[in-house]
Amino acid sequence: MPRTRPVQPAPTGPVRLGPDAHAALRPTAVAIDAGFWHARRETNARVSVPQGPGLLESAGNLHNLRLAAGTAEGEFQGAYPFVDTDVYKWLEAAAWQLGHRGDDSLAADVDRIIALVAAAQQPDGYLNTWFQLVKGGERYQDLRWGHELYCAGHLIQAAVAHHRATGRTELLDVARRFADHVDSVFGLPGSGRPIDGIDGHPEVETALVELYRETGERRYLDLAGYFVDRHGHGLLGGEAYCQDRVPVREATNVEGHAVRQLYLLAAAADLATETGDTELRAAGERLWHAMTTTKTHLTGGLGAHHDQEDFGDPYELPNERAYCETCAAIASVQWSWRLALLTGEARYSDLVERTLYNGFLAGVSLDGERWLYVNPLQVRDGHTDPGGDQSARRTRWFRCACCPPNVMRLLGSLEHYLASGDDDGLQIHQYVTGRYACGPIVVRAETDYPWHGTIALTVEETPADRPWTLSLRIPQWCREFRVRCGEETYDSPVDDGWLRLERTWAPGDRIVLELSLEPRLTGADPRVDAVRGCVAIERGPLVYCLEQVDHPGGGLDDIVLDTTRPLAVKHRPDLLGGVTTVVAAGRRRGIPDRGWWPYASADTTAAPEPDGETVEFTAVPYYAWANREDGSMRVWLPTS
Amino acid sequence: MPRTRPVQPAPTGPVRLGPDAHAALRPTAVAIDAGFWHARRETNARVSVPQGPGLLESAGNLHNLRLAAGTAEGEFQGAYPFVDTDVYKWLEAAAWQLGHRGDDSLAADVDRIIALVAAAQQPDGYLNTWFQLVKGGERYQDLRWGHELYCAGHLIQAAVAHHRATGRTELLDVARRFADHVDSVFGLPGSGRPIDGIDGHPEVETALVELYRETGERRYLDLAGYFVDRHGHGLLGGEAYCQDRVPVREATNVEGHAVRQLYLLAAAADLATETGDTELRAAGERLWHAMTTTKTHLTGGLGAHHDQEDFGDPYELPNERAYCETCAAIASVQWSWRLALLTGEARYSDLVERTLYNGFLAGVSLDGERWLYVNPLQVRDGHTDPGGDQSARRTRWFRCACCPPNVMRLLGSLEHYLASGDDDGLQIHQYVTGRYACGPIVVRAETDYPWHGTIALTVEETPADRPWTLSLRIPQWCREFRVRCGEETYDSPVDDGWLRLERTWAPGDRIVLELSLEPRLTGADPRVDAVRGCVAIERGPLVYCLEQVDHPGGGLDDIVLDTTRPLAVKHRPDLLGGVTTVVAAGRRRGIPDRGWWPYASADTTAAPEPDGETVEFTAVPYYAWANREDGSMRVWLPTS
Repeated sequence: MPRTRPVQPAPTGPVRLGPDAHAALRPTAVAIDAGFWHARRETNARVSVPQGPGLLESAGNLHNLRLAAGTAEGEFQGAYPFVDTDVYKWLEAAAWQLGHRGDDSLAADVDRIIALVAAAQQPDGYLNTWFQLVKGGERYQDLRWGHELYCAGHLIQAAVAHHRATGRTELLDVARRFADHVDSVFGLPGSGRPIDGIDGHPEVETALVELYRETGERRYLDLAGYFVDRHGHGLLGGEAYCQDRVPVREATNVEGHAVRQLYLLAAAADLATETGDTELRAAGERLWHAMTTTKTHLTGGLGAHHDQEDFGDPYELPNERAYCETCAAIASVQWSWRLALLTGEARYSDLVERTLYNGFLAGVSLDGERWLYVNPLQVRDGHTDPGGDQSARRTRWFRCACCPPNVMRLLGSLEHYLASGDDDGLQIHQYVTGRYACGPIVVRAETDYPWHGTIALTVEETPADRPWTLSLRIPQWCREFRVRCGEETYDSPVDDGWLRLERTWAPGDRIVLELSLEPRLTGADPRVDAVRGCVAIERGPLVYCLEQVDHPGGGLDDIVLDTTRPLAVKHRPDLLGGVTTVVAAGRRRGIPDRGWWPYASADTTAAPEPDGETVEFTAVPYYAWANREDGSMRVWLPTS
Repeated sequence: MPRTRPVQPAPTGPVRLGPDAHAALRPTAVAIDAGFWHARRETNARVSVPQGPGLLESAGNLHNLRLAAGTAEGEFQGAYPFVDTDVYKWLEAAAWQLGHRGDDSLAADVDRIIALVAAAQQPDGYLNTWFQLVKGGERYQDLRWGHELYCAGHLIQAAVAHHRATGRTELLDVARRFADHVDSVFGLPGSGRPIDGIDGHPEVETALVELYRETGERRYLDLAGYFVDRHGHGLLGGEAYCQDRVPVREATNVEGHAVRQLYLLAAAADLATETGDTELRAAGERLWHAMTTTKTHLTGGLGAHHDQEDFGDPYELPNERAYCETCAAIASVQWSWRLALLTGEARYSDLVERTLYNGFLAGVSLDGERWLYVNPLQVRDGHTDPGGDQSARRTRWFRCACCPPNVMRLLGSLEHYLASGDDDGLQIHQYVTGRYACGPIVVRAETDYPWHGTIALTVEETPADRPWTLSLRIPQWCREFRVRCGEETYDSPVDDGWLRLERTWAPGDRIVLELSLEPRLTGADPRVDAVRGCVAIERGPLVYCLEQVDHPGGGLDDIVLDTTRPLAVKHRPDLLGGVTTVVAAGRRRGIPDRGWWPYASADTTAAPEPDGETVEFTAVPYYAWANREDGSMRVWLPTS
């Protein structure tokens, strides 16, 4: 078919599948140009990303690179062996952004910082300022905690992003030198490589698959496979924390440090995609199902424990101590997206949507300047905040600053997680305002989602001579929807999450999808003890919460929702950058004085409570919490 | 009154009040000679305590003392600067035990180990093997984490115990030298002492009060007061963890590291007792009330977070992640007992009882050989145990072995926490079989408590010529009781927890107290979100739990208790050393398959569940859990 202009941008985002990939779907970018995510990306591009270099300077990350290059003097700054990754993740964010948005000032910052990275690299390709400066160059002696390959992984991802987005090779050359060095050092006994080992923090695995995709060099893929499969064999002492208790292929549930687990599983999905390894694919599907059914918070947040940043037991999903590290939400999106492409199944993008709108987005303030590392589902009245990285109050930057640049890189590349194509047509996984393109197909979408449920689609370009299928994901949360093509209401059954509209399309064809956004009350599996007797308010993809600031005159620990009263929806353009609130009815309990002991006969506790005060509850989207004055917050609301 | 034999043993236990103490009550020892606690103390005396020296040898604690004395060669062993305290706490346990039980072998071990301690002490009195051996003798440079004064405190407590129980001075001399050294170093600016500082782990404070009581030297009391009041002034950076966020006198709730908080508050109670400081007394009463109403688990366990071993927010009382360190239960008993004596109020001994029978006693296995550091209220089906000190499986010894010798010292001195006297007579705080003595008064008690509720008391010795009051604590949990004196049923009203029987007693007078031990279902304040919709089974002072091993064929995560069916009591002499079980009726849920997402419309979750399997639940006392095969466990039982 002749094309008047290139309609499909080069696959310039993360997860550019190799030519022989065994994936059901191939990602395609969306040109987002208005609406909810456009606004978030504008804040990312105008506030968060530009502030990066200054923060990396004041935190000492760039200083460390100069020290390693011998162009500055002083002490190493920072408390962790992985501080270089803050730089790499920022570079990756900036690179993705340069791929879709001209910005000379940003380009200059990127060039300057890439030069610092290149100068800090050692002649044989090794690069880690902590080990070069603090540990006297002693390499690979502490694989459990050293994070050297983790750092290599983020360097590689940044380099791939920079090359993919800009065509430039400066950083890619640095990354390849490091990757080649790693490849010369690590391998199975008998391989001629001196070390049979893995990194305590997976990350290099998925990065090496991307490097294979970018360079075509198979040995990077093989090295990734080696690392993935060496987890779980006790090379690091067999700890679940380090993903060393059980091999991925044998695991039955996610465990250990959440981000470590999820990065490793993203790599396993990458490998299954590129090699057709059905056992790894099955392991990924099995573990994803186990994770979602037993270890995922309503927000898509992952990780139940503060002390090891790890998954808890099945159905152990606490509220005030939900860990839900922002990085884990990002890693979950990365893994789920890979499974969505690999399998073609909509459920993976259901979780991506839930995570993006809730557990992920809560990690950055509305103004793009403050962050949450942990994302609890409850803050109690009288909360004593510990401060520091695990604070429930937004923080300008962290001692362990992994999350902020991770948010930046996901927002900077978000257009690559929204749509895919295959031989049959285009699949729309997430609804944004912009252009969805796939080969000769271009579809324009207009929507106020998630505030309104109408998505208006217009076919702008299409092959004239053959039918193709426009697949629309009907979200898992959606109980009612309607789709019209022109005058005709289309009631194709939903095929495992996909509404598939197959026809010979013509430019100008209009499809209107209407998803009902009736607010709803959601309960949990009864084994989730933490929320027994509670419901959460949801609307569309958004999880809602109550914040103290909207409920003066009392706290939130003693409230009761009246589930018999209707929920009212009220759009508030003045509030929190413009949100739709959900208004509910309830009361504060009258709690009898029990003296010094808060436990009493169940007969007593089951007795009618004294009358409490009636309250109108105003629920706001969870992602927007903690943007006003400090106070209590809760997602799950007691009903009796 | 002429006495034919000494009826009141010398006050040879902890908390020997000074002559001018402002306490309502004075402790008096009980000669326990049979029954529940006698059996636990026998196991302690025959198994736990005798194994101490071997364990301290194999863990390296004694080796470190020899290294410090220059009588051995090698490396320091152990990971913490406070490993010496394992030795001191064991010495304290052994000393208390020697006070009421002849044991030549134990006495020889004690002498030998005291000699090691004495030899390790430096000429100026300083003693800490970690700093002497690992830190090159650099003292008091890391007060936040160094634990030097914490170690001094446990040394002092051991020395006081040894002196009080045996009359020997070898260890007391060592402790006084260290205390004098500390007194020469620490003090307010302008005091002539070089350091104005506190230890990150309170303990020396209460120890110094005890040293004052033992020696009569007022400067030890003053030094204790200095340390207590310097907390909360930012000398350690202001962290709640170290009890440095707010002064004790101004605090409104317990916070930070639980054991640190409780040892500090025990010292505050000691000071209020010895000095009549009403502000400190009021602070203690206020903080105790805040702790019990908002931060105490049903078992008396304290501490809600694993990562800082600290208290959570008010009403944040998780089950599977309850921390409830065994040492915190012990510290709570120590603090509450001091408040009981100071105020004369029964509620403090109510908490002591609850803690002893549940949160404390669970810390040691029935065979006296294995320990729990953390005491969760739930272990889930499919629990992945982390191993190590925070394991939910009993462990032979810990890397941080603070709890086992702490259990030993409390069991070894338990007879001193049970009764008191004042000018009006004798107060029985806890019911055991044995002799309660106070001045000229001796009362013999026989009971099978806590299995049976009958306590038979016989007046053995009494002043013939004047009335006195026998005060019996009616436990807070008790809903019905009866007391008979001879033929007469006595129905004196309970006075704030005390049943006071005043009369002119004669030898041979019998009093029979019958506490109803009907099993009961207990609920919680509705703000304790973690147990919403649940009840716990209790009987007498005992909290009960379900263990997997008694419920084959399924797990415990999906159970529902039927609260309409009666609870049955069954004594099982064969089970767990002989326990009374409570049998209840219920079912396992039929949980519908919700696919990959465990959250659904509240309408759906409120709908009737599929029929589940009917189950007879067998509840065992919580203290006896984890003595059989590994498996799930729960205290709080869902009711719908």
